[in-house]
Amino acid sequence: MKSYRKELWLHSPARRGLINITSHVEYCLNECGIRQALLLCNAMHITASVFINDDEAGLHEDFEIWLEGLAPEKPYSRYRHNGFEDNGDAHLKRTIMGREVVVAVSEAKLDFGPWEQIFYGEFDGKRRKRVLVKIIGE
Amino acid sequence: MKSYRKELWLHSPARRGLINITSHVEYCLNECGIRQALLLCNAMHITASVFINDDEAGLHEDFEIWLEGLAPEKPYSRYRHNGFEDNGDAHLKRTIMGREVVVAVSEAKLDFGPWEQIFYGEFDGKRRKRVLVKIIGE
Amino acid sequence: MKSYRKELWLHSPARRGLINITSHVEYCLNECGIRQALLLCNAMHITASVFINDDEAGLHEDFEIWLEGLAPEKPYSRYRHNGFEDNGDAHLKRTIMGREVVVAVSEAKLDFGPWEQIFYGEFDGKRRKRVLVKIIGE
Repeated sequence: MKSYRKELWLHSPARRGLINITSHVEYCLNECGIRQALLLCNAMHITASVFINDDEAGLHEDFEIWLEGLAPEKPYSRYRHNGFEDNGDAHLKRTIMGREVVVAVSEAKLDFGPWEQIFYGEFDGKRRKRVLVKIIGE
Repeated sequence: MKSYRKELWLHSPARRGLINITSHVEYCLNECGIRQALLLCNAMHITASVFINDDEAGLHEDFEIWLEGLAPEKPYSRYRHNGFEDNGDAHLKRTIMGREVVVAVSEAKLDFGPWEQIFYGEFDGKRRKRVLVKIIGE
Repeated sequence: MKSYRKELWLHSPARRGLINITSHVEYCLNECGIRQALLLCNAMHITASVFINDDEAGLHEDFEIWLEGLAPEKPYSRYRHNGFEDNGDAHLKRTIMGREVVVAVSEAKLDFGPWEQIFYGEFDGKRRKRVLVKIIGE
């Protein structure tokens, strides 16, 4: 059995943004040489997500509008969490989008369907945050 | 360490539908003989889900109505993704229901509570699509 | 390769409640001595969740209000699932919050960011229910 661990550092200049991290995760896979595995990729922060979907700009706008409808940022007083903070909405948005993905690794590749791409979803940005990649296999 | 990989092909005749795939996943487990493991089961398409819940027809109607409320199919112009496509809603519905499940395998069985069943959730059907089963264990 | 399995028993005295189970999961990790792994922690019941977020009371109130908005408990007749049961809303709330988490284990510790804590989310309580911990690693 082999294991591998790497932290990816990400920075979203705006409060919210989606960043395609597929090539970063593929780099990890190439670096470790593991051929058959489960790969975990998770946000290490509780106001951010890692999820899999399409790399299409219109869809990403749809996500932004839809999440604002389900868990609006303002008014900040809407959330009991917002005493010393203003990111109550970000905790809820991340819940919808998910903390983590688990991906199959087969023949040393991400075992993906045709349109699957891994995204980091930032909902309380403007600072550096981390994503963890952990691989268990052989 | 042992690993196993299988693609399941599914076809939902309607745009949306839920298909119980538990017996298909159990077949994979019997085929590979792995006794202690983590089993990943994920949709390979970004407008479909794999999730765990109850096999009860009333609940499945509730899911349909609830998801249509949270991310309505129409009007198609509602979504920026719907330039050349009409499946913007399907990407959002799949986000709510989830891409994947990870299931414990113990003593060569799916290690489930009394009502857990694995479902494929189709939100943009009428064509054949794939689910991946990947098992890492021994 | 090593594997480990444990059931945790939980009891929420109210219909809904969030219980921090991080220390229970850490106990499992200490008990088995596995140092590099993927750890699965999932609700064994389909009206409950396991999820990761902040241990902050205001946020937990926000979750309660938000989930009641997205999938109200009453009127019970709202849900087709509620023929012999009254927990249709609990199935939907658990879908939003998620069935499971997968956590990296590195150097025999939960490999967490600064605020990550594991919670059991009960949406149909007043009775004992189970969470499964399964670890695959070495």
